Amino acid sequence: MSFNRKDLLGIRDLQPHEIEYILDLAASLKEINTRTIKKVPTLRGKTVIHLFYEPSTRTRTSFDIAAKRLSADTYSITGSTSSLVKGETFLDTLKNLEAMKPDVFIIRHSASGAPHRMAARTSAAVINAGDGMHEHPSQALLDMLTIREHKGRLEGLRVLIVGDIAHSRVARSNIWGLSKMGAEVVVCAPATLLPPDIEAMGAKVSHHLREAIPAADVIMVLRLQRERMQQMLLPSLREYAIYYGINGEKLKTARKDILIMHPGPMNRGVEISPEVADGPYSVILDQVTNGVAVRMALLYLLAQRPREVESRSAAPES
Amino acid sequence: MSFNRKDLLGIRDLQPHEIEYILDLAASLKEINTRTIKKVPTLRGKTVIHLFYEPSTRTRTSFDIAAKRLSADTYSITGSTSSLVKGETFLDTLKNLEAMKPDVFIIRHSASGAPHRMAARTSAAVINAGDGMHEHPSQALLDMLTIREHKGRLEGLRVLIVGDIAHSRVARSNIWGLSKMGAEVVVCAPATLLPPDIEAMGAKVSHHLREAIPAADVIMVLRLQRERMQQMLLPSLREYAIYYGINGEKLKTARKDILIMHPGPMNRGVEISPEVADGPYSVILDQVTNGVAVRMALLYLLAQRPREVESRSAAPES
Amino acid sequence: MSFNRKDLLGIRDLQPHEIEYILDLAASLKEINTRTIKKVPTLRGKTVIHLFYEPSTRTRTSFDIAAKRLSADTYSITGSTSSLVKGETFLDTLKNLEAMKPDVFIIRHSASGAPHRMAARTSAAVINAGDGMHEHPSQALLDMLTIREHKGRLEGLRVLIVGDIAHSRVARSNIWGLSKMGAEVVVCAPATLLPPDIEAMGAKVSHHLREAIPAADVIMVLRLQRERMQQMLLPSLREYAIYYGINGEKLKTARKDILIMHPGPMNRGVEISPEVADGPYSVILDQVTNGVAVRMALLYLLAQRPREVESRSAAPES
Repeated sequence: MSFNRKDLLGIRDLQPHEIEYILDLAASLKEINTRTIKKVPTLRGKTVIHLFYEPSTRTRTSFDIAAKRLSADTYSITGSTSSLVKGETFLDTLKNLEAMKPDVFIIRHSASGAPHRMAARTSAAVINAGDGMHEHPSQALLDMLTIREHKGRLEGLRVLIVGDIAHSRVARSNIWGLSKMGAEVVVCAPATLLPPDIEAMGAKVSHHLREAIPAADVIMVLRLQRERMQQMLLPSLREYAIYYGINGEKLKTARKDILIMHPGPMNRGVEISPEVADGPYSVILDQVTNGVAVRMALLYLLAQRPREVESRSAAPES
Repeated sequence: MSFNRKDLLGIRDLQPHEIEYILDLAASLKEINTRTIKKVPTLRGKTVIHLFYEPSTRTRTSFDIAAKRLSADTYSITGSTSSLVKGETFLDTLKNLEAMKPDVFIIRHSASGAPHRMAARTSAAVINAGDGMHEHPSQALLDMLTIREHKGRLEGLRVLIVGDIAHSRVARSNIWGLSKMGAEVVVCAPATLLPPDIEAMGAKVSHHLREAIPAADVIMVLRLQRERMQQMLLPSLREYAIYYGINGEKLKTARKDILIMHPGPMNRGVEISPEVADGPYSVILDQVTNGVAVRMALLYLLAQRPREVESRSAAPES
Repeated sequence: MSFNRKDLLGIRDLQPHEIEYILDLAASLKEINTRTIKKVPTLRGKTVIHLFYEPSTRTRTSFDIAAKRLSADTYSITGSTSSLVKGETFLDTLKNLEAMKPDVFIIRHSASGAPHRMAARTSAAVINAGDGMHEHPSQALLDMLTIREHKGRLEGLRVLIVGDIAHSRVARSNIWGLSKMGAEVVVCAPATLLPPDIEAMGAKVSHHLREAIPAADVIMVLRLQRERMQQMLLPSLREYAIYYGINGEKLKTARKDILIMHPGPMNRGVEISPEVADGPYSVILDQVTNGVAVRMALLYLLAQRPREVESRSAAPES
């Protein structure tokens, strides 16, 4: 029962005991963030490179804080500053950076599978920080940690995910992860925002939010991208809010120990009402706090592996 | 006689003994910046987040150097990279970052009072690095430190502030600070660049620069924003330079120990002539050096406070 | 036999023994990058400022990694974020940053000679990271280190540089450096991409790539800027690739121990074919690895000098 991988690319290919191992480690590392001196020397002398081809403040900052609290050195390369603008291929950028001997790449890319292609071509560890509409594994892990903290378990819980399932890597990673851990996942969305393969992924579908709410232990509210309106997938924000927005009125039939989650950033008044976002059931900020802990765990597990590249690269010197 | 605040939001609400305490501490920390090893472990394991909604290189770099020389870890979130672009509210961005357990937020915002609203909603310390046309307290503190270093005191000095008083947070913070410390502040500007409440703030008004110069111990020259021309507040840069620009000819009647200050960046040839900017009375670069020292003092005082949030956030774990 | 300069501005003004000293030091520091803990405390408490007026990811990241592996603190100021946008002069930006007591400026600028003008006005060390079409000394040093590692020497080798010599600071620095170290440099390019003074620089000219290849020990392939087409210096990328692109077919007559180098980023299929870039003669990624080592050596040599400015700046305090 341990974790012995080079990369963290997705939840789909993890074993339940690996997920549990990461969550346990995150729970124990979390305490560091509440100390007066929030820093341990574990990853001193390690090099972590953020390679973000899509903009992201919160995920990148969360990983960056996690890395520095473990004493790693971090570097940030973003789409607009990268050599891509000079016509270099994605793989050449990767191989160049690899030649500078990093230990971990944290990558976000708009193309599904980009981190997997990177991981196959580098001996450094690769963490997927979100690829296209595919996976966002650290988000699912922090969500599972948050549920487990509040409920004491994942097994047997019913988690209702509401919103744009089709375009959401957060939903995908959570459906795979929660199912593996023995929770039941129900999704609820307008038909245009449901992927065709949703039941094969292990989720049940509810078309009526009000019918699904009473049995839920957890409601994960997804962010609604405003672009979906232009793509004719939704008639209007207002109609979406009426039918799918989570508000106090709809929660009247919910369990008294319901948890409300949101991966952020929130569109207040669209997919979630302010009273719910800031209300007693909300664990949205706990998710953010746990995000740092989960990312510390991932870096702890992946940055310390002995790497083949080191012996190889040492050769030309001798 | 000490400093026991959670935040540094402005000069206006400080007591004279608090200003003196900060200046004394800055004067003693300044020496660190001249060492061979310019680093002390005081703030090791502390997390400092720059949250800059307005662009700024010099102020942000000065705070960043101050933080790292005290061994804090720093993170920079700027307007263009922040989640604001995704429609998140200012307060949600703040609460999200707070959930990652920072010790200090350093905030610059175009809205007057923004740092005050933040400070009321976070248990982390907030330092105002400039809010709208309101305050820029670290600038006033570094200005006071520079004057005190050269004159040995602030009390009884006459400080002449020349330029766009109406739109200047530097002027506002200095008028409040210098008055509190017993200096006399005289402002001189075209009528369109004077705020209506200037005398209530404690400053005297001079409409004739040449009359005000001989009695001044210090002249603070403000940067002229070129936008003021488009706003029809000034006829031309050239006319401004003739009447309000500080040059060698105008300084002929000045005291021989006059100090010339400028918060930067300078428009050479507009509000200040090159011969004055680079001349023997100029302490403009001393201001920059003292900026790092003052910001070290502020971080030293604010980053080390025990914070309530820590005990609260630890609770869900137990 | 040592290195006793304040700045590293170019290769042209270095003595051969100085180049050798830097390469020897880089070769010994290189090992740090293959350790489990890739960090030494040598430059703890030193302040390194990247001042990049031209965009660059790879060079800036390489210097940044070099600095942090020596435990320096780094700050990055780029053209778009600098106060230049507010109309401040280049020199005022420099003097302001200098007043914050940095130890080293690493500067890239589109104007040839800009780092030299800076170096003359600051007591901090200045490293030229590329100025206009003039010099890129750290690139030439890493190229020489790479050749020396593979060939055991520089003296007596024949190095063929192919491509846009006229606009290449990489070519200029290498021609000066390799010639000083006893290598013979031959350049090959379309007439419109050759500078008029090329033979005075110490290089021979070959107009026929196929004739030059068999005698070469090393081929340095330069990046072709696509702008050269718009400037009417070249008819088409395709024609350039046919006559000057290095591919497997052209290398059939090359020595069996030929080295293929490229400073990056590569235009695959234009100046270099993928089979050559990724082939057995390519040492392109070794160049990148050696870049970190050379920059560690430069920072090691320049950041530790006692600086006059420290005694001067301490004066006002006493």
